[in-house]
Amino acid sequence: MPNQEQQSSKLRINASRLQSNIRELAIFGLNQATGGLDRTTFTPAELAAREWLKAELLRLNLAVRVDAAANIWAVRSGAGGRSPDVSAVSDRSVACLAAIAFGSHIDTVPNGGKYDGALGVLLALEVMTVLEENKVVTRHPLELVSFSAEEPNPFGLSTFGSRAVAGKLKAKDLAGVRNDQGELLTEALRLAGGDPEQFEAARRKPEELAAFLEVHIEQGKRLLDRDIPVGLVTAITGIYREEITVLGEANHAGTTLMGDRKDALMGASEMLLAFETVCRNHPADEVVGTIGRISNEPNAANIIPEKVTFHLEIRGEQRAQIREVLGDWGKLALPIAERRGLRLERRLILDQSPEPLDSLVISLCEGQAEKLGYSSLRLGSMAGHDATHMASLTRAGMLFVPSLDGKSHCPEEESRIEDMEKAGNVLLQSILALDQELNH
Amino acid sequence: MPNQEQQSSKLRINASRLQSNIRELAIFGLNQATGGLDRTTFTPAELAAREWLKAELLRLNLAVRVDAAANIWAVRSGAGGRSPDVSAVSDRSVACLAAIAFGSHIDTVPNGGKYDGALGVLLALEVMTVLEENKVVTRHPLELVSFSAEEPNPFGLSTFGSRAVAGKLKAKDLAGVRNDQGELLTEALRLAGGDPEQFEAARRKPEELAAFLEVHIEQGKRLLDRDIPVGLVTAITGIYREEITVLGEANHAGTTLMGDRKDALMGASEMLLAFETVCRNHPADEVVGTIGRISNEPNAANIIPEKVTFHLEIRGEQRAQIREVLGDWGKLALPIAERRGLRLERRLILDQSPEPLDSLVISLCEGQAEKLGYSSLRLGSMAGHDATHMASLTRAGMLFVPSLDGKSHCPEEESRIEDMEKAGNVLLQSILALDQELNH
Repeated sequence: MPNQEQQSSKLRINASRLQSNIRELAIFGLNQATGGLDRTTFTPAELAAREWLKAELLRLNLAVRVDAAANIWAVRSGAGGRSPDVSAVSDRSVACLAAIAFGSHIDTVPNGGKYDGALGVLLALEVMTVLEENKVVTRHPLELVSFSAEEPNPFGLSTFGSRAVAGKLKAKDLAGVRNDQGELLTEALRLAGGDPEQFEAARRKPEELAAFLEVHIEQGKRLLDRDIPVGLVTAITGIYREEITVLGEANHAGTTLMGDRKDALMGASEMLLAFETVCRNHPADEVVGTIGRISNEPNAANIIPEKVTFHLEIRGEQRAQIREVLGDWGKLALPIAERRGLRLERRLILDQSPEPLDSLVISLCEGQAEKLGYSSLRLGSMAGHDATHMASLTRAGMLFVPSLDGKSHCPEEESRIEDMEKAGNVLLQSILALDQELNH
Repeated sequence: MPNQEQQSSKLRINASRLQSNIRELAIFGLNQATGGLDRTTFTPAELAAREWLKAELLRLNLAVRVDAAANIWAVRSGAGGRSPDVSAVSDRSVACLAAIAFGSHIDTVPNGGKYDGALGVLLALEVMTVLEENKVVTRHPLELVSFSAEEPNPFGLSTFGSRAVAGKLKAKDLAGVRNDQGELLTEALRLAGGDPEQFEAARRKPEELAAFLEVHIEQGKRLLDRDIPVGLVTAITGIYREEITVLGEANHAGTTLMGDRKDALMGASEMLLAFETVCRNHPADEVVGTIGRISNEPNAANIIPEKVTFHLEIRGEQRAQIREVLGDWGKLALPIAERRGLRLERRLILDQSPEPLDSLVISLCEGQAEKLGYSSLRLGSMAGHDATHMASLTRAGMLFVPSLDGKSHCPEEESRIEDMEKAGNVLLQSILALDQELNH
């Protein structure tokens, strides 16, 4: 075993094979006009990509299964046995080591890029390939996973697969859900190999998993700006959303003097800018706020706006930070409304807690990056990921790869092959290290 | 003749008959749920209202005709002859006196009120009734007019009838125009008694008209706030509209730090507030600006806005005032765009000149109000009216009646009967005075 361990530490992923796989997978859903990918979950393009992936996995002699949520799993058996540095031996533990899982998703947003999600699955495939080629025997079973429907999709359920695995999504949540074309989610799921009748069978027990690792593009510029190839995700951001309605008075745009107006849109504009100021002034860089959605009524050029509705979103690594922004904004928004004779209505839409990732996994990945000679940076994930839900089930970790220009969810989404290669090597070596470290 | 003139100056309209007519006309298009009127142009309700009006006019022995634009005209013949205070006599002038016209419109906006437009027509009817009852003989022919389709309507052509009369609307402007139900404007016009084939026959020649007078509700609070019953309109506001597009960069709402954003909506908000400030700071009260229409792309809670489009409207009595506001705003908007890394695109939509009304008619109405013992105020009209177009054809004047709470285009639209009565008396006496004053 020490011999294999020494040899294993020299293993590296194959960058040209990775690049070729990226190219192959990117055929599915290619939008010729934009160069982007239209591979929304459960569309024909996405189903074809699933078939491609399953064929690749079967070629590695892995046990491939599709669970009730249509997640694709590929299992590589472990030898069992205890780590050599652990003295106490128990027969029972030999047979019962839990699995180390790793992966991401292959669905995209409409007109998305080649890397968001796909990179994590293709690096997991690369890890499995390297292990198979080198006949590496691990103690823990290893499981590659490609989660269903991570992205926002026409059925309105993102991180669908990982939520099912974490037991956060129930059969009743699927009932009657349709996309814009009126197609039932349960039917689409069935076509992808899922089983809506046994949906909750997709749930995994905490004792079945020893750890989970996901590689993903950063979708921001923090790594790029600092010229650091490996990001170690410390936590996945909390997301808080409110719908705010500003109520004023519709009136004739000509006959109502400026002083007589209760203009909901002008009031909302002032509130938006106050929100931007509060977010900019927050000491933590990784606290961000966005107003991405707004509507105006009656929305006619010659009528003073009566009702403006907008979605206010705050993201932060800590609940307290989100509450600070919300509190500071509220203190500014109310006087704006009062001064302008407007009313405010507020409705909570989403309050997703920040999810800290596992400190042992983070340190271990950090150590492997260092051994490999790569600089790394601890940073929060400002986007949600499948790892958010896996973290509620097992020790979870995430590696980020720099995104060129910070762009994602667009055809221009791009990462450098040398950065992806480094992340793949850290993933590979971290899985092997976890295999040695963990004893359950 | 002096005898008749002395008697005529004692004539007054009948307020209770006016009120009863307001009630009767308001049956057509009554929305039982809201109490408002749905009497959009060329709808069955509006056609029924036209029939009611024609029957009332025929009862007064007037010559009723419907022109090619479906405007309803009712003519009361004049005796001809020169004013007693004019010494020079020409035979030719006796037979050729032009008509003094007065009226407004009876169509409404959806869920509109009982007074906007209808009051002007019903006061014109009242004037004709009083003259008929008292067998008053005027020198000029008098013409009551009820214009077609003054309000914004589903065919997208407001002040339709008066533009046709002024020669500003041509047959080709009607070709292929349909409402939301796909109905052709030409068909609807035919049903209302118009003639799309001979459409331009609706045009009146300047020499056919000696003057035009319109009574309308103010739709603002200037008269009410000052407790003045009679408004004398000095000019009809110019309306200037631009479509402004603010172009930023769509990006992930989580992974894009506050400092890295090019948020089109935040930039637009700042531009909106700058516009409000410029309009508020303009020294003329009657210069107003509105941003009533706005759209945002891609308009998703988790994507930073890329493109915001809004309609900017400025109204003022003088072109110079409109240009001042536009210039001042431009000086503020450009630096906002530059500072935020945004681009601005501007497109002219409408540039309708302010239309000054006739100073002789204004002074004459002012004098009649004074003789009647009513206080009056000269003020600009901040809304467009049929009189705008009639002013390009003949001496035009407008009287405003106070609007309670300044409300209009809604079921709550209301005016006091004593104010309407006063406006009716000023209209009646001004018509008689014009009849004496004018010699063409």
